[in-house]
Order: sequence, then structure tokens, then C-alpha cells
Amino acid sequence: VAVMLGKLQFWFEFASTYSYVAAMRIQGEAAAARVELEWKPFLLGPIFDAQLGTADSPFNVHPERGRYMWRDLERLCEHFALPWRRPSVFPRTSLIGARVASAAAGEAWCPAFVRAVFRANFAEDRDIAASGVIAELLESVGQPGAAWLARAQSPEAKQLLRDNTERAVALGIFGAPSFTVGSELFWGQDRIEHALAFARG
Amino acid sequence: VAVMLGKLQFWFEFASTYSYVAAMRIQGEAAAARVELEWKPFLLGPIFDAQLGTADSPFNVHPERGRYMWRDLERLCEHFALPWRRPSVFPRTSLIGARVASAAAGEAWCPAFVRAVFRANFAEDRDIAASGVIAELLESVGQPGAAWLARAQSPEAKQLLRDNTERAVALGIFGAPSFTVGSELFWGQDRIEHALAFARG
Repeated sequence: VAVMLGKLQFWFEFASTYSYVAAMRIQGEAAAARVELEWKPFLLGPIFDAQLGTADSPFNVHPERGRYMWRDLERLCEHFALPWRRPSVFPRTSLIGARVASAAAGEAWCPAFVRAVFRANFAEDRDIAASGVIAELLESVGQPGAAWLARAQSPEAKQLLRDNTERAVALGIFGAPSFTVGSELFWGQDRIEHALAFARG
Repeated sequence: VAVMLGKLQFWFEFASTYSYVAAMRIQGEAAAARVELEWKPFLLGPIFDAQLGTADSPFNVHPERGRYMWRDLERLCEHFALPWRRPSVFPRTSLIGARVASAAAGEAWCPAFVRAVFRANFAEDRDIAASGVIAELLESVGQPGAAWLARAQSPEAKQLLRDNTERAVALGIFGAPSFTVGSELFWGQDRIEHALAFARG
């Protein structure tokens, strides 16, 4: 068993393009740095709504930022050798997937499920808003889809995701992906290395 | 004489905190990568005004983004061993400095002047909006302050800066620092390495 040198919380939103890149990279990077990872799904919509006055993505609201982001994602995915297909719907509703990930955050298979959802959205252009798709992705990592979907609709699971999103706001989070070490916040997949170094102290 | 392997345009705004970090880093990084550097001062105010509906910094408009940025800058400056003092006025009016830098962009001493202006703003908390301060910074790099200030007020110098800002818009630029290689755009000081790699082809 490797001795862990620190702990990092990884805050992600299934609708977020840069969260996709971070989600695909972070487990390997954290393991190499011997930093323990906590997976924290949350919803950006309510945060954008409160802070920016609209729940839509700033990449849709500001076309010049959107144009840049789509090109940047192509380049980043090439750089990190990640599959990429621009989704035909953006941003996709991430609620069901985020509730499942909240309820399953402690499970060993959860990181694989998270990556499967991101891949479905950003490499396969599948509709992750649909519960049938989420069920299939659960099955793809060896889990009973219907059972987890039912559990994700429980008041407890709904509350878990609300708690995560409120905790994100309390930590000063305004975008995704974000990383926290205690109250120290890092924003953007470019900051994975800095955040891991900070977690090691 | 080193054989240069590519060419990069560096777009900066003297009022921009992340432009400060980029300006202090880029000449060394570009030289190491053997990439020729073109210094392109421009004004973010008119771009923010047109795109976001206010010329003020998004870091002032959105307090949670501002809080993060100020902490991030502290950390980045520590990481890159750069001096840092949070300016008492933000953003400072960069017009005079930007006009001088536009008029002097081809001069060998221009990069040293650019760094001096950024240091004055972000390490010494000096008022770079004041022509007297800009004159002193010119003298500090061995240049006649009054003469360059007069030249910066000429219609030609004013037009040079307007042209830079219009060119920035045409290239899709929406923030600073930015880097371009032909029509390929990179945004943010985190992208220096990617932009240099792209410039090398």
C-alpha cells in the first residue's frame, strides 16, 4: 500500500468540457503524486445563475469565448491523447449522472463511471441527460443500472448533490473543474499540477 | 546568432495581472524555445466594453472571481519567484504606457520597458496611469522620457495602439495575456508552453 502524502478534492460538472479533460487525467496524476483523491460532483447551473444571472454556459453567452474554447479543447485532447468529438448539444443536463456520482462517490468503481459519463458526452456525443444512457454507462462498469438510478432519485441522494453544490459555493468555487485542499482553491484543468503540489505540502 | 524556429505574437495589457506574470516569463521561455517574439500591447477596456457590456475588469464585476484571482496571483508569483504587491488601484489606466510600447515595439529596449511598467504596477504599486511615472520608467531603461511621451501622443502612435486593439479583436482575442501564431490563438499565461510548442510547428 502506497503511503499517501496529501488529499485533494476534485470538483467536476459532467456538462463542462474542461472537467472532461481533468477527469481523464487526474487519477493517474494523483496516483503518481501519491495524493488521495475525493470525487466531488456538483452542478454549475445554479452557481452560474446566482453569480452571472443565467444558468447557460458563459461559452454560449459569449461567442468569442465559445469559439476559443472549442478550438482549445481540440488541441488539449490532442495534447493529452484523449478522444474528442464536439457534442451536438451543449451544455447537456447533467443532473441524473451527478446524482448517481454523488450517491456512489465512495465506491471503488465511481471514477470509472465518471470517466464513462464524460466520454459519452465529449467523445461519443451521447445524451447523458437520458436516464437510459446513464443506466447503460453504469452497466458498462459492472453495476446494476436500474438499482443505482432508483437510488439516485432518493431524497438522500438528491440532498447529497445539493450539499456538494452548496459546499462548492462556500469554498468560493465559480467554475469547473476546481480543486481544493482544505480551503485552498484551484480553478481549471491547467492547475492540476499546482493543486497536487500544494496537497503534498 | 541562434536560428529561430518560429514566431509568436505576445498580446498584453498593462492593467492585467496575468499579463504581468506572462511578461516576466516570456522572453526567457521564447529564447529557450528559439521562438521569435513580437510584443503587441493592446487595450482590454474597449474589448470588454463591446463583449461584456462594461469596460471594468470581470474580476471586479464578479467578486468570487476576483477573490480567486488575487490569491492565485500570490501563488503564481511565489511559484515563478516574481515580486508581487497587490495594487491599491485595479485596474489601472494603461493608455499612456500602451501608446509608448506601441510606438517602441521594434526597439531593443522595449521588452525591458514593458517589464518595468508591469513591475511598477504589480510589484511596486505605482500609478502607471501617470505620465510622470511612465517617463521615469523610460529613463530607467536608458531612454529620454519626455521625448518618448511626446512621440506617444502623436496621431501615428495613437493609431498604432488602435490598430493593435482592432487586430486583437479580429484574431478573436477576448482577454489578456494572449498569444497568436498566425491565426491560432492561445489565452492565458498557463498557455505559454503550448503556444511556443505550436510556434515551433
